[in-house]
Amino acid sequence: MEHVRRFIAERDMFARHLGIEITEAARGYARAVMPLDAHHRNGVGMAHGGAIFAVADLAFAVACNTRGRVSVNLNTSISFLAPGKCGPLTAEAREISAARRVATYEIRITDGEGTLIAICQATAYSKNQPVPGLASAGTPRSAD
Amino acid sequence: MEHVRRFIAERDMFARHLGIEITEAARGYARAVMPLDAHHRNGVGMAHGGAIFAVADLAFAVACNTRGRVSVNLNTSISFLAPGKCGPLTAEAREISAARRVATYEIRITDGEGTLIAICQATAYSKNQPVPGLASAGTPRSAD
Amino acid sequence: MEHVRRFIAERDMFARHLGIEITEAARGYARAVMPLDAHHRNGVGMAHGGAIFAVADLAFAVACNTRGRVSVNLNTSISFLAPGKCGPLTAEAREISAARRVATYEIRITDGEGTLIAICQATAYSKNQPVPGLASAGTPRSAD
Amino acid sequence: MEHVRRFIAERDMFARHLGIEITEAARGYARAVMPLDAHHRNGVGMAHGGAIFAVADLAFAVACNTRGRVSVNLNTSISFLAPGKCGPLTAEAREISAARRVATYEIRITDGEGTLIAICQATAYSKNQPVPGLASAGTPRSAD
Repeated sequence: MEHVRRFIAERDMFARHLGIEITEAARGYARAVMPLDAHHRNGVGMAHGGAIFAVADLAFAVACNTRGRVSVNLNTSISFLAPGKCGPLTAEAREISAARRVATYEIRITDGEGTLIAICQATAYSKNQPVPGLASAGTPRSAD
Repeated sequence: MEHVRRFIAERDMFARHLGIEITEAARGYARAVMPLDAHHRNGVGMAHGGAIFAVADLAFAVACNTRGRVSVNLNTSISFLAPGKCGPLTAEAREISAARRVATYEIRITDGEGTLIAICQATAYSKNQPVPGLASAGTPRSAD
Repeated sequence: MEHVRRFIAERDMFARHLGIEITEAARGYARAVMPLDAHHRNGVGMAHGGAIFAVADLAFAVACNTRGRVSVNLNTSISFLAPGKCGPLTAEAREISAARRVATYEIRITDGEGTLIAICQATAYSKNQPVPGLASAGTPRSAD
Repeated sequence: MEHVRRFIAERDMFARHLGIEITEAARGYARAVMPLDAHHRNGVGMAHGGAIFAVADLAFAVACNTRGRVSVNLNTSISFLAPGKCGPLTAEAREISAARRVATYEIRITDGEGTLIAICQATAYSKNQPVPGLASAGTPRSAD
């Protein structure tokens, strides 16, 4: 867990750029938190769809790499449910199903008032490589 | 077009934070470009899934707001096809179908070498409000 | 509820052709059941992806029309998790979120042994028309 | 091709039950056709969402199995664009991208007048097994 948090904090430059932190991780589960500052907002001052996806993707990346092999994001379907007005945004990723190479996750994103603002259904593919400090968490797939 | 570019450049703080620019916009179409700097990358140095989604979302937002009414993102399915190694990333959104309130778009994202790295299928909902300088481009839906 | 069951049984010819029955319906919720006969199976004898989608779509259609206005399916993302070996297949649709015109549902499909074989994330659009005996349940959208 | 058509016609009982035929297949491509009879329609007389998905799924199944290894459907996102009023419905599946184990397809479904009524984005996983007469075409994934 501390290992995961440190990896994201030190190596994932995009997560750092957006201020995303991993606040919990367990087998098949992770929670990520992101502040909702001016630079996470769109032209009308709400949480940007891209920022909402980003925090969800980080939670998913950590959750699916907890299984010990490098996993990549094949596909994510995100539904936007309500505007995110206040931070921080919290994303929780939970494993729904896992076979040898493919796993499916659900991710729920809430705003600072606890309102559910988006949900995702995501599919991960596990490569035949051990996770080197969660090195490729959430990497869009490379030649598999 | 110039109007759109300026709006994104000045008002969409998330797009600014990621250096995303709108380089073309026409009715039902838009192209957005984002550099691939260190802070757009994940722990293994590839384009971050969240960054790829962000540039796609911006192109989609502009494309669907070109129809003149405030449109919001209901759902986007993104499939990651290949790692993004070099920038800039370019996203092109094209309208596939549009009814009075709902429209469907396809978005293709390529890296600096022209490799197709992701595709999206996205659904937008048009509110009964004129676009005030494209004010809500890509806003996740508020109470409709 | 009895009204709903009768409507599907009498008017939805596709549901009849596949033997799908609505076994429960409440505001924002529905359950549909389908036998797993030879004609619901694919070339290797498992539940066909199309049959799995069909029972899920029926549950979704009924669930979203319980809100009283004609609703249509805009988009459904279905993830297949495990093969369906034995029947009947049961699909349960639950409302995750509902705004004035747009609602989001989750659908879970289990086989006869209770194994979760697929999940869906679905977006419905409500027209400005009262449901005439749930007449258009699950109809892909017409000109809205 | 003839091999494929015969396999679907003889072994895929669900496709038979709906009258779906494979009318063309090439590497990474397939076209399937389904009549639009009373039993393919919903309560208001339009093509049923489940029937539209079924013909799309068959085209996808054949297209992804043309690569020679057993492929299964991991996830499909289907967007409904317009009502299908007249038959036959035609689905064309095209490979967008293919890596060693994972491939992504786009499927377009048109009605008898050539109107685009739905599009799909679909992800397939290739098992390490040769296709035995396309035996598992489109099978939702089994333990991989």
